[in-house]
Amino acid sequence: MSTLELLENHRLFGGWQQRYRHYSSSLNCPMTFSIFLPEPRGTRLPPTLYCLAGLTCTDENFSSKSGAQRVAQQLGILLVMPDTSPRGDKVANDEAYDLGQGAGFYLNATQPPWSEHFRMYDYIQSELPLLIRDNFDIDERQAIMGHSMGGHGALMLALRNPGQFTSASAFAPVVNPCDVPWGQKAFRTYLGQDETQWWQYDSCHLLRCAEHQLPMLIDQGESDQFLAGQLQPERLEAIASEKNYPLTLRIQPGYDHSYFFISSVVEDHLRFHAQFLFD
Amino acid sequence: MSTLELLENHRLFGGWQQRYRHYSSSLNCPMTFSIFLPEPRGTRLPPTLYCLAGLTCTDENFSSKSGAQRVAQQLGILLVMPDTSPRGDKVANDEAYDLGQGAGFYLNATQPPWSEHFRMYDYIQSELPLLIRDNFDIDERQAIMGHSMGGHGALMLALRNPGQFTSASAFAPVVNPCDVPWGQKAFRTYLGQDETQWWQYDSCHLLRCAEHQLPMLIDQGESDQFLAGQLQPERLEAIASEKNYPLTLRIQPGYDHSYFFISSVVEDHLRFHAQFLFD
Repeated sequence: MSTLELLENHRLFGGWQQRYRHYSSSLNCPMTFSIFLPEPRGTRLPPTLYCLAGLTCTDENFSSKSGAQRVAQQLGILLVMPDTSPRGDKVANDEAYDLGQGAGFYLNATQPPWSEHFRMYDYIQSELPLLIRDNFDIDERQAIMGHSMGGHGALMLALRNPGQFTSASAFAPVVNPCDVPWGQKAFRTYLGQDETQWWQYDSCHLLRCAEHQLPMLIDQGESDQFLAGQLQPERLEAIASEKNYPLTLRIQPGYDHSYFFISSVVEDHLRFHAQFLFD
Repeated sequence: MSTLELLENHRLFGGWQQRYRHYSSSLNCPMTFSIFLPEPRGTRLPPTLYCLAGLTCTDENFSSKSGAQRVAQQLGILLVMPDTSPRGDKVANDEAYDLGQGAGFYLNATQPPWSEHFRMYDYIQSELPLLIRDNFDIDERQAIMGHSMGGHGALMLALRNPGQFTSASAFAPVVNPCDVPWGQKAFRTYLGQDETQWWQYDSCHLLRCAEHQLPMLIDQGESDQFLAGQLQPERLEAIASEKNYPLTLRIQPGYDHSYFFISSVVEDHLRFHAQFLFD
């Protein structure tokens, strides 16, 4: 079993904000994640909410800028904030901000040199939940949310594992990566030219094929600079509407793609997940 | 009059988070500040709360990490988040984190080469409030708060200008800079060897001499790594107690010096100031 090395420990809103390093067998390198542990209340163990960040981010962006911990403490939810890719001198990289380190896209790469380390799907879906379960006192229920590339990750992981997560939500997610520049560039690089291999990571495709339902909430800023070119959440909403799938899309006038947007709506997302995590 | 150049504009919690650049005549260089404008409600104009940051910070730390804007929107308070020193290639600097750019200490330097630009006292006390008044629709009432070096700035500015500010508060402030390493190093460098010139910037000295009162709130993390060596707020509390001065000091078990601490108590500070800003 992987050993956790405590890097930081800060009291926050009555709970504890911590950072850990561990060796990841999925990613074949050391990884760092952040976690918020709410102060225990009574005997009820906290369920877990995974918070997946976007391009260029580490585990620290959501930790320091979202303000989610205030509400997580109120509700008694444990937050896990992973990094967005494998890291290190020995890990393949690219000069572009939307490829390589900081841009793992929550998939398992099949193309060299990426396939040696870039297995974020396995890391988030399997390795990290087991690590959390083995090292912290938690309830078994899990929910997942994310921002932008991390919104893609959250929706995609939930659609593929509807029995694992009670609910999923996203801020400004990439919902149809097969058909937008960020996704096409990443998928071609990590997964190769065969587009049939891309579908397993595309929320629009997955939702069209979904046999099981779980509640979903998406918030999208109307002044987001990436809305028209990369995001277009109405594509996912249209499929959900056809299938009578429980997806709520909210368009928020004036908001952009930044953490200022996330922090403005994150309380709603935690309260949304709490309905199902404590059902 | 200085012209404001809008650098950023983000919707946040229903209000607006903006960044501006302007030429500062006090500091003799271009400066950048951030501001949170709450969404107007009815005809009541917002009062202003100045938020002074600590060593190494810019206008962006408090903006992105404190979470204060959520409560500022609820209460209808405008927040001004200034930089911590003059900046630029032509501005004197030092390799140490606690001197030069990012370490203005909210004073007017008298020693070359610092005296050419380092006049943060004048900038915060006079130039910036006039700039805000001339460019935004505000109520005339002002309050001030700050963190660490910025806590020193907030308490010191309020003690010297009790008619200008309705109230002052601080997170982990330097209260007795004449007698701790950070303050002694800065004061000797910026103000020279004559310690009598230091007293005008020392909150303990100023409180001892204060003839007018204004309400003060200080929060201090008990696990703050700088508590014993640099902060010691009980020195200020003892003087307040002797003089029956309205200062409340709260020691917060487990909290450290980080923005995780600030974000945990910032709501209390805004509600504290609101009592007097809307009195």
